[in-house]
Amino acid sequence: MATAISPTENTLSISPNTHQTHNRFHFSKRPSFKFPLQTSFNTLHVNSTRLRISASSAQLMDQSLNEFTINDPTIVEVHLGDRTYPIYIGSGLLDQPHLLQRHIHGKKVLVVTNTKVAPLYLDKTVRALTDGNPNVTVETVILPDGEKYKDMDTLMKVFDKAIESRLDRRSTFVALGGGVIGDMCGYAAASFLRGVNFIQIPTTVMAQVDSSVGGKTGINHPLGKNLIGAFYQPQCVLIDTDTLKTLPDRELASGLAEVIKYGLIRDAEFFEWQEKNMEALLSRDPAAFTYAIKRSCENKAEVVALDEKEGGLRATLNLGHTFGHAIETGLGYGEWLHGEAVAAGTVMAVDMSYRLGWIDESLVKRVFDILQRAKLPTSPPESMTVEMFKSVMAVDKKVADGLLRLILLKGPLGNCVFTGDYDRKALDETLQAFSKS
Amino acid sequence: MATAISPTENTLSISPNTHQTHNRFHFSKRPSFKFPLQTSFNTLHVNSTRLRISASSAQLMDQSLNEFTINDPTIVEVHLGDRTYPIYIGSGLLDQPHLLQRHIHGKKVLVVTNTKVAPLYLDKTVRALTDGNPNVTVETVILPDGEKYKDMDTLMKVFDKAIESRLDRRSTFVALGGGVIGDMCGYAAASFLRGVNFIQIPTTVMAQVDSSVGGKTGINHPLGKNLIGAFYQPQCVLIDTDTLKTLPDRELASGLAEVIKYGLIRDAEFFEWQEKNMEALLSRDPAAFTYAIKRSCENKAEVVALDEKEGGLRATLNLGHTFGHAIETGLGYGEWLHGEAVAAGTVMAVDMSYRLGWIDESLVKRVFDILQRAKLPTSPPESMTVEMFKSVMAVDKKVADGLLRLILLKGPLGNCVFTGDYDRKALDETLQAFSKS
Repeated sequence: MATAISPTENTLSISPNTHQTHNRFHFSKRPSFKFPLQTSFNTLHVNSTRLRISASSAQLMDQSLNEFTINDPTIVEVHLGDRTYPIYIGSGLLDQPHLLQRHIHGKKVLVVTNTKVAPLYLDKTVRALTDGNPNVTVETVILPDGEKYKDMDTLMKVFDKAIESRLDRRSTFVALGGGVIGDMCGYAAASFLRGVNFIQIPTTVMAQVDSSVGGKTGINHPLGKNLIGAFYQPQCVLIDTDTLKTLPDRELASGLAEVIKYGLIRDAEFFEWQEKNMEALLSRDPAAFTYAIKRSCENKAEVVALDEKEGGLRATLNLGHTFGHAIETGLGYGEWLHGEAVAAGTVMAVDMSYRLGWIDESLVKRVFDILQRAKLPTSPPESMTVEMFKSVMAVDKKVADGLLRLILLKGPLGNCVFTGDYDRKALDETLQAFSKS
Repeated sequence: MATAISPTENTLSISPNTHQTHNRFHFSKRPSFKFPLQTSFNTLHVNSTRLRISASSAQLMDQSLNEFTINDPTIVEVHLGDRTYPIYIGSGLLDQPHLLQRHIHGKKVLVVTNTKVAPLYLDKTVRALTDGNPNVTVETVILPDGEKYKDMDTLMKVFDKAIESRLDRRSTFVALGGGVIGDMCGYAAASFLRGVNFIQIPTTVMAQVDSSVGGKTGINHPLGKNLIGAFYQPQCVLIDTDTLKTLPDRELASGLAEVIKYGLIRDAEFFEWQEKNMEALLSRDPAAFTYAIKRSCENKAEVVALDEKEGGLRATLNLGHTFGHAIETGLGYGEWLHGEAVAAGTVMAVDMSYRLGWIDESLVKRVFDILQRAKLPTSPPESMTVEMFKSVMAVDKKVADGLLRLILLKGPLGNCVFTGDYDRKALDETLQAFSKS
């Protein structure tokens, strides 16, 4: 049961059954519970002693991975009132046109993808959109690949294509690719004619477990990541795990950094599952991945449903991201993958949590070990200086009235805080320990 | 009482008292009424036989203009749930710092203005934001003046300044200027860090009666007006009618085009008031203007409260705008002022309504006369061709699945429809009558 230590007045009750499962995993019905909403500046404490999966399920899971019915999509619902949407997860879903077509309302679709993904999955996607549906016209814009193109100039290419193709308000934009494509296409959909329909088909682990839930869209500014954007929800997200077959190893590992994060901030049992199943994930076992994506999406969906606009709770999803963004910005976008930077940033956040006396040394070691096993970096690149960290962190979106708030671990595995109330000395020591002065 | 002819299933009841008035005009308490919500494709009929002001008030108004207490702001509330905000209207309001300061939450404010308005009102605005409020720091970005700068490059200057100034999520953006500044600053506020606070101080009639209500923000694309943007509501709007003293005649007339529009689409009594008071408006009588702005904002606020995202009803606010946008785009932005193009577009929409047999000839004449008295154009520029109209109208935001929907007058004064169900011949005849083939 999720509980909070900090005093707060607002509580929000959520319904017991936020997931629909169409696979063979057995989930216990959870009782309804009350969850505190963060009010602006207090420290937010989150722990996760609740067990969402029944006592026997960890064992069950290991047994049932191979029994998984791959063509039935697993569905995670993201509950956001009239903007509630489903995430379909499974193998072979791009071969099931009805999944996408039920979410297309107008007659024109614009698929936004990149030069790397287009040769692999564009034809398949167009078929999924048009098979048995002759009224729909599909236009395509293929962008250059990479975080360094997540900028205003590239965004304008999407608008240019949409306007040249005379797309109207009933059109649908489809993001086919990783997080960069999802973020840019989502922001374009939010802004084109002040908002058109939007569907995501994420093809990287990172996009599947992170960008596909929560409606954060946007582009980078030369001075900082994701500084320009919108909160905008898709009509649906379709995750075909078959697309992972073509994903480079480095991209795969990058996504695992976010998977590991969910365990650390709120789901101890999931972290323990990862410790047992890391090899299955690295060998791209489809059932293991379907489970990891599902559980990641559920964790994120719960957080986003409670705090869509990041009043407080949602910020906890950014464990390691403040340090990580500094690495990405300091190195230049695209040098390190997002998850690689987050992995190093997570080690730094954990180090700082330990210096503050908030966690045991054993947890520091477990984090270090699992990131290493996932083939992720455990320290920032050598070129990073303390000053580089500080200058980027000063413009972080979580700064409020000059105070930098951080997500740090506190207590047993699965517990974190989002706070500006920490000893600055610990931050300085962590920066010194991990970078040149 | 607003009623609808078209069949519809959704109804929304709104509360009886949507206005707070702090002046001496006497408003009758209106009974609650049910208003139809438009469902996508049907024709929407709107008439305005309701009288929002009590039977004796038209007379009262003429008498009380000079008794108006100029330093008490008139307040129009725009009702949008948790995004409800007030519009303060009156003389000398920039000398009342508490009006603005109650809506500033963080410590940093970015004033976005232009080269024409800055020398006139920037110092005054900064004083209004900071007097007695030493914790607030004000940054300023001064943009070039004119519709042709309502583009992505100029928008980026706002982001550059915001990031350089290390503005955070609790910052407030203040738009000081006309509609272009309001639209750009609003879109910047919607997009910066995915959304920060926003205050509007409109200094033109156009911005006061149109852009200040409804949260439409955005920029132009070389191929069409306002194609990129967001729906985003301000914290408050402050309209100091003293700023009209420095407004060029052409700008003043441009704003009157929108004032006249409110009468035509939904408020016959207001139109009749304008016919009686056009000279007072042209001579910038402050009380007449406070009344005209208030009544315009009330009309727009009612429409927006019922249909924030432009499902149907809200589209009726675009009478004359489809033809007008074609003129603005065809000539190049900035050649004609927005209201000038809308005036010519209104004459065209009225001409087409008459050709369809939907209105009397007498109404055609009244529209022509009042626009002439307001010193507005009553036909498009000679360089416009039928083809220019058609190519721009084809990418209008009101096109749905290839069908162009238009706002046309139908029935007695104060009644309009939003429909794609009209004889194309009438449209062709109107285009031919007003432009070269």
